[in-house]
Amino acid sequence: MLDTAEHTAMANAIRALAMDAVEKAKSGHPGMPMGTADIATVLFTKFLKFDPANPLWPDRDRFVLSAGHGSMLIYSVLHLLGVEDMTLDDLKNFRQLGSKTAGHPEYGHAEGIETTTGPLGQGLATAVGMALAERILNAEYGDDLVDHYTYVIAGDGCLMEGISHEAIDFAGHLGLSKLVVIFDDNGITIDGHTSVSTSIDHVARFEASGWRAERIDGHDPAAIAAALERAKTSKKPTLIAAKTVIGYGAPTKAGSHAVHGAPLGGTEIEGAREKLGWSYAPFEIPAEVRDAWRLAGLKAGHGRKEWEKRFKALPAETRATFDRRIRGDLPSDLAEKIAAYKAQLVSEKPNLASRKASENALQVLAAAAPELLGGSADLTASNFTKAKSQKPIVPGDFDGRYIYYGIREFGMAAAMNGIALHGGFVPYGGTFLVFTDYCRPAIRLAALMRIRAIYVMTHDSIGLGEDGPTHQPVEHLASLRAIPNLYVFRPGDAVETLEAWEAALGLERNPSLLSLSRQNLPAFRTETSSENKVSLGAYEAAPADGEAEVSLFASGSEVAIAFAAKALLDEAGHPTRVVSVPCFELFEAQSPEYRAETIGTAKVKIGVEAAIRLGWDAIIGSDGLFVGMTSFGASGPADKLYEHFGITPKAIAAAATKKLGG
Amino acid sequence: MLDTAEHTAMANAIRALAMDAVEKAKSGHPGMPMGTADIATVLFTKFLKFDPANPLWPDRDRFVLSAGHGSMLIYSVLHLLGVEDMTLDDLKNFRQLGSKTAGHPEYGHAEGIETTTGPLGQGLATAVGMALAERILNAEYGDDLVDHYTYVIAGDGCLMEGISHEAIDFAGHLGLSKLVVIFDDNGITIDGHTSVSTSIDHVARFEASGWRAERIDGHDPAAIAAALERAKTSKKPTLIAAKTVIGYGAPTKAGSHAVHGAPLGGTEIEGAREKLGWSYAPFEIPAEVRDAWRLAGLKAGHGRKEWEKRFKALPAETRATFDRRIRGDLPSDLAEKIAAYKAQLVSEKPNLASRKASENALQVLAAAAPELLGGSADLTASNFTKAKSQKPIVPGDFDGRYIYYGIREFGMAAAMNGIALHGGFVPYGGTFLVFTDYCRPAIRLAALMRIRAIYVMTHDSIGLGEDGPTHQPVEHLASLRAIPNLYVFRPGDAVETLEAWEAALGLERNPSLLSLSRQNLPAFRTETSSENKVSLGAYEAAPADGEAEVSLFASGSEVAIAFAAKALLDEAGHPTRVVSVPCFELFEAQSPEYRAETIGTAKVKIGVEAAIRLGWDAIIGSDGLFVGMTSFGASGPADKLYEHFGITPKAIAAAATKKLGG
Repeated sequence: MLDTAEHTAMANAIRALAMDAVEKAKSGHPGMPMGTADIATVLFTKFLKFDPANPLWPDRDRFVLSAGHGSMLIYSVLHLLGVEDMTLDDLKNFRQLGSKTAGHPEYGHAEGIETTTGPLGQGLATAVGMALAERILNAEYGDDLVDHYTYVIAGDGCLMEGISHEAIDFAGHLGLSKLVVIFDDNGITIDGHTSVSTSIDHVARFEASGWRAERIDGHDPAAIAAALERAKTSKKPTLIAAKTVIGYGAPTKAGSHAVHGAPLGGTEIEGAREKLGWSYAPFEIPAEVRDAWRLAGLKAGHGRKEWEKRFKALPAETRATFDRRIRGDLPSDLAEKIAAYKAQLVSEKPNLASRKASENALQVLAAAAPELLGGSADLTASNFTKAKSQKPIVPGDFDGRYIYYGIREFGMAAAMNGIALHGGFVPYGGTFLVFTDYCRPAIRLAALMRIRAIYVMTHDSIGLGEDGPTHQPVEHLASLRAIPNLYVFRPGDAVETLEAWEAALGLERNPSLLSLSRQNLPAFRTETSSENKVSLGAYEAAPADGEAEVSLFASGSEVAIAFAAKALLDEAGHPTRVVSVPCFELFEAQSPEYRAETIGTAKVKIGVEAAIRLGWDAIIGSDGLFVGMTSFGASGPADKLYEHFGITPKAIAAAATKKLGG
Repeated sequence: MLDTAEHTAMANAIRALAMDAVEKAKSGHPGMPMGTADIATVLFTKFLKFDPANPLWPDRDRFVLSAGHGSMLIYSVLHLLGVEDMTLDDLKNFRQLGSKTAGHPEYGHAEGIETTTGPLGQGLATAVGMALAERILNAEYGDDLVDHYTYVIAGDGCLMEGISHEAIDFAGHLGLSKLVVIFDDNGITIDGHTSVSTSIDHVARFEASGWRAERIDGHDPAAIAAALERAKTSKKPTLIAAKTVIGYGAPTKAGSHAVHGAPLGGTEIEGAREKLGWSYAPFEIPAEVRDAWRLAGLKAGHGRKEWEKRFKALPAETRATFDRRIRGDLPSDLAEKIAAYKAQLVSEKPNLASRKASENALQVLAAAAPELLGGSADLTASNFTKAKSQKPIVPGDFDGRYIYYGIREFGMAAAMNGIALHGGFVPYGGTFLVFTDYCRPAIRLAALMRIRAIYVMTHDSIGLGEDGPTHQPVEHLASLRAIPNLYVFRPGDAVETLEAWEAALGLERNPSLLSLSRQNLPAFRTETSSENKVSLGAYEAAPADGEAEVSLFASGSEVAIAFAAKALLDEAGHPTRVVSVPCFELFEAQSPEYRAETIGTAKVKIGVEAAIRLGWDAIIGSDGLFVGMTSFGASGPADKLYEHFGITPKAIAAAATKKLGG
């Protein structure tokens, strides 16, 4: 039974904190938390399995505020529930430099913030990944260890964004019944009423995608509770479209976009306090309201103690593995297995496309590391992302390790974020490199959150051939290298591909991207070495015969071209060395001495990459030469394109000779 | 009445050409054109208003092959209809370097290809822009001049992509009844049957978004014709979900993904010829089939002659303006009006955010150039994209110049492509610079197609303040400058903002992006000059007093910081000059002499931009200094952030002094 007066006071505490914090910060979004305070109160005090004393407990329900601009909602609730990590002073420091309470919720700033949100639609899509990870981990460990819900509050913006379609279609297909999305249906966007730009029937839309969907009054606590109860028995994911008034309580601005993204101002706040019957000073929470929230927090945490009992009763090995998986540590014998496979590659010297070398590496890695959770955006047989041991996940059977993400690159990348955030898995997913443009906003969030997601991006240059310029990346390597915290690997043969995988897996707090070729690449790493040379970022792959006149720097499929150019130049009497550059970011992190030694002092420095020059000046200098692309590609057979765009051993040799002679 | 035997033969001609061309190219996608041949035959021979003798006639129906991998469908049809620009030899050169018949349809390669497609979903969203442009131009010129349909063939991939949601929601809202989408519902994706990744009911989904939707048998010509007839009387946009068999006619591979993306092989093709009753040699079209197609082409073109009669009857001035608008020439008096406003700005010296300066410029430009068609992805009052004279477009009334695109950045950018391709308008649209990530795939297509779309991207740095790192672009300028053919402008005051607008409008064959500040910027262009200095890309904004020891290069909001640093350095006895760099691409296009002179020979060169260094080495050299960002931003007041990240006059002066002393 709901005590209505108590509920109202508890919800008003959120409203007041949101108003006060925005007012103090002189910027922010009061309307959303004021409008959804009733929903959040019911959800957090009656439904959410969440222990304020241990907000990172693995089997907690996940809560995602997809409408991230309403960040004061989650900050208020975490504070009221008694999360130590979120003090009243933190609320008072809302939107100030260095505070936990950033303008949008930032993962890592405080416990209880499950993901960074703000870029609209992505919270919802990330939550789909969390809900999926829960089901897969449940299939492995059973209900006793893994059995929780994922709740989302999403706004009109989230549901207008295209990614919402990818997310809900995917979740509906998989039947993620423990995913519950509450739509804050306040009818307001920044440009005015939502009717200026949409006429959609969201309930019908979600139903078309296989969801259970209903409409409720978002200010009626009983209706909210009843809808959340019904969601728990649904065999489908649930949408609750909750009609709300944005800025509920604000006397003149409620229900209008005036309350969305700016402080209310003193007079309006005074009026709101009166209207809401909230007679307390700014940031003051009366004891009985605080106690009610704390009590709810205590109750919400009961599940954890029972879970811990069950957990302790398990065999030590199961516990150890589960803990390791949740921590994100790799299996202790993984390095050894990689080393053994590397020795095999060194002796076999395969002539393989790096996408194929990646598949071969995955056969070893997937067998050794059960946390690897693969997938592709409908290009499995092109990206070579599926290891033989990986069983596909299908609706109703989550006991697998491979996800058919469908033609949803952005949805895939956002779901991968959710999987990584959930814990227990290291997600990787594939598409063509050119389509990193489609998933870029989610890659950026992974980089901002510093989480380990691995993008397997194949067909990484004009080398893909006839599909033409819409499918040929040219600017993508540069634009991905531009993203802070993201590591871009472009391995040049099978050994480098394995080393790139090893390095990416080892970057526990960073996303990585593997840029892989469609076309075959000869082996050049043919000497046994225990060192992971890719992890140096760049290294001398072939020394000059004598003092080098020319240094060639190349990545990926162009390393072989650089080797061929070296042969031409050596023959012409110009001693030439080849430096392989599989990862700019790791090279940047080396000591100045190593960098200087690797770059060397040859008179002529040439960068070679079937992409634009941008970024290469850091290695070859602004007076260095570059053999690559200066325009979009074209449709034609790959070898013809390399000729046409002048990325050939001859062209390199000619450029070097001209510079040496000049 | 349909002659079934004739229809079948005509459709089989498409199938045979598709099989044969893919086989000859040894790569390509035969399944889609074989599966949609019946649809295309009915559409192109009975419905499409299209004159093969003049494929660019302004009032033609537009046809968009959103499933662009099925490019042989459109190449075959254009050839069969008798478009001179598409010969049998062109078909034989399918997917070869330099051919018109690229792997995916490329705008500009041949008349009749209305847009480049291939990146899935975008064709549909581009078509929405075309259909919208048609309605707006119709509101201006009436049914006699502008009254045509936009037809789309889209596949499962197009409809799984998120952008499809933005496109159909937007089109349904606006009631674009002359938009007809035929969904090639073949149930096959690359990973297998569509049931591996989706369970959606597309008909219900489109209906939820305000469309008329129905299902038909996509191989029944009478059903196809009847559905297209019904579409013509609908007051809503129409979806026709046509059940088809991919690779229809292929004896063993039809209906499976084996027929999607690879040549059928000799035996399968032989079997298909037998099954289809097509006994002709590769690339042979029997005379009666060719004649039937040509006759249909002649009939389809009748509308043009009647249109031309109507057009000739119009006043000369109406004709001249219409022609000018369709050609894309700007009004002849525009330059003069810009010059007058520039003189005003030079005298007023306003201290304005460049987003506000852009709004002021738009008041002048929108009044002078009726082709300017503005909009924003729900940030009108933040982007300042709406001129007072611009009436909003609303459902049922297209007589306006401003579009509320909703929270659909990608859909907006794709629609802008469609508007530009349609002709008659110069589209511009706004969002925050950070959300260029959301629209990047459409910006890339604009650049690839070389069409004039102008992106008004505001809040272009940490200067946006408290909204924090999810909203603060850091890597975006570099990653946008990486896109070939795109011009990125970052003006530093009101005069530069106006000049950037002028330069962008003048780039008739390129998209441009305006990167604009949230925060106020003092005027530094305070001297009268008829020259558009922004069009130089970079220029000396302040000379040194004596021989320069330091050159500061800055863009946008950092020019003012560079000026302040110059004052400090001058005072310290280090003569310093300031170079404003509003557009890298235009500076790159200047003569080597001008570039060298502008870069100068000062001992210390410092780039200043509140973004990452990537790209600046081309100006400051790899040994130059850079004051900017090396990480993501943070949430806090803008001035605090500039301090925190060390982008201040003091930091610049200190860096210069250290280098000079060292």
